[in-house]
Amino acid sequence: MSDIPSAVRISEEGPREGFQIEKGPIPTTRKIELIDALSRTGIDHMQIVSFVNPKAVPGMADADEVVEGIAPRPGVEYTALWLNERGFERALMHDRLALAGSITLVASEKFSKRNQNRTAAEQLAGQHTIVEKYKAAGVPVERGMVMAAFGCNFEGDVPVSRVVSLVQQILDVAKQHGVTLKYITLADTMAWANPLSIKRVVGTLRERWPDVDFALHLHDTRGMAVANAFAGLEMGVKRFDAAVAGLGGCPFAGHAGAAGNICTEDLVFMCNEMGIKTGIDLDELIACAKLAEDIVGHPLPGAVMKGGTLQKYRA
Amino acid sequence: MSDIPSAVRISEEGPREGFQIEKGPIPTTRKIELIDALSRTGIDHMQIVSFVNPKAVPGMADADEVVEGIAPRPGVEYTALWLNERGFERALMHDRLALAGSITLVASEKFSKRNQNRTAAEQLAGQHTIVEKYKAAGVPVERGMVMAAFGCNFEGDVPVSRVVSLVQQILDVAKQHGVTLKYITLADTMAWANPLSIKRVVGTLRERWPDVDFALHLHDTRGMAVANAFAGLEMGVKRFDAAVAGLGGCPFAGHAGAAGNICTEDLVFMCNEMGIKTGIDLDELIACAKLAEDIVGHPLPGAVMKGGTLQKYRA
Repeated sequence: MSDIPSAVRISEEGPREGFQIEKGPIPTTRKIELIDALSRTGIDHMQIVSFVNPKAVPGMADADEVVEGIAPRPGVEYTALWLNERGFERALMHDRLALAGSITLVASEKFSKRNQNRTAAEQLAGQHTIVEKYKAAGVPVERGMVMAAFGCNFEGDVPVSRVVSLVQQILDVAKQHGVTLKYITLADTMAWANPLSIKRVVGTLRERWPDVDFALHLHDTRGMAVANAFAGLEMGVKRFDAAVAGLGGCPFAGHAGAAGNICTEDLVFMCNEMGIKTGIDLDELIACAKLAEDIVGHPLPGAVMKGGTLQKYRA
Repeated sequence: MSDIPSAVRISEEGPREGFQIEKGPIPTTRKIELIDALSRTGIDHMQIVSFVNPKAVPGMADADEVVEGIAPRPGVEYTALWLNERGFERALMHDRLALAGSITLVASEKFSKRNQNRTAAEQLAGQHTIVEKYKAAGVPVERGMVMAAFGCNFEGDVPVSRVVSLVQQILDVAKQHGVTLKYITLADTMAWANPLSIKRVVGTLRERWPDVDFALHLHDTRGMAVANAFAGLEMGVKRFDAAVAGLGGCPFAGHAGAAGNICTEDLVFMCNEMGIKTGIDLDELIACAKLAEDIVGHPLPGAVMKGGTLQKYRA
């Protein structure tokens, strides 16, 4: 158990993950209300919007207004997602965003075709192009990302060897363009991971690249997210994406029971109970989870916000 | 990872855990419908009713009718819960029940007082009495049980040393009365466990009693149940209680968001994905989970019944 880290860094993705999939319409002011509340919990990294085609994702049509409407809190990095050049250019308009580029590959070509209409080869070529665009715009390239790293609804199980190959490609792209990645995120985009596959994939990657920091982006569609996070912690993973109240899901994933990301407050609760520091105030985060439920107008999957923490019993 | 078992035995407790806490009233025929459907999934051990005071637990007032109404399936053991002599006598009336006695101690005296109005000393004394009653009635005493083994809403954290002491007391009672326990269940009655406390407690007990089979009874109030089960599997635990769809909860636990037991189909899904045999047909079990939702008339917490399995994507 000695690989379990003493502290983890959680990137909050609830506003982006959640508001892009909720039917809504959700007033811009309420999105801003949640983001500002989250910024007071100790969360220091938050993806708040995506700059995507408003026809495809109407819930993000007000992305510019959301970014301009928040009250930026010192010490908090507000980031955004974009999927193409047009989205990147919109993001560049906002000084208050801490933009950072990613080198992103999808472990499933069928998903890549469906999600971004690109073959694997086109996608790899595109990464070379976009890294140069980031450099030209003065945007640091900090993160690598393997999407669908554990399986795909359109292609099935993803062999570990393919993930190894994609991580190698990501590192090669970074090297060729002279950028140093801070970490590489393995995204369980369609909730195919189980705790043993997490251990197998992370273990294989760590053995090959002991100095690379691997992060996990987990979805809870099949109830495995917290167990998968624990398996990741056991393998020394120190960075997680998460979404308050379990907001979110993937509109392209092709299944009905659109479950969201791993729930931030459930992850923080587990870390607290196991003595792992997160820097996040759990009570304030639970208040945000209840606010998120109020904003979307229906129950959200988070457990700790319903069951409560253990602190009042210990007091 | 070598301690992970190749097969586990899951005891289904949904009918008893669920129908005792649901407001209802749920027609007796529908309870029977669920039990009979569950008996066709491959589940071979099922706790279907509790014989308790109908004034305290109105949902179990029809326990005798439920037992008489089911269509017993060969190979399935149908069991019942009782909390006192009167309940035990009612259980004895039913030949179709596979009665087995337990030696049960509660790791929290305050909870014991509240739940059964007994001090720890009275409870231990009571176990001596009841084992003799079981023997006189020809009922095998097969299971030891430590309730609130990981913490208690009324007493707080439970030290591992207390669990060790209670397991010793249980084994002593068994020895004094010449009975051999098949296993000892550690119940996380009020959802205080986390994956590391599971490992710590099970690890300590296994080290001291390498030949005793320890089982886990987990609640999901704070979203930790599947992760806790995984931690248990990593420590070699081969027996779990679970409840279809996540039915259930504890009416005495003193918190509002009464979450249920670990969800059977989510546990079976995790086992399937990790290559651990359960003997249970997951698709049929998911159909039972949906039936359970229909019977109680509100959403239940199970994830896989909403998100679906991965088999259709692999086919």
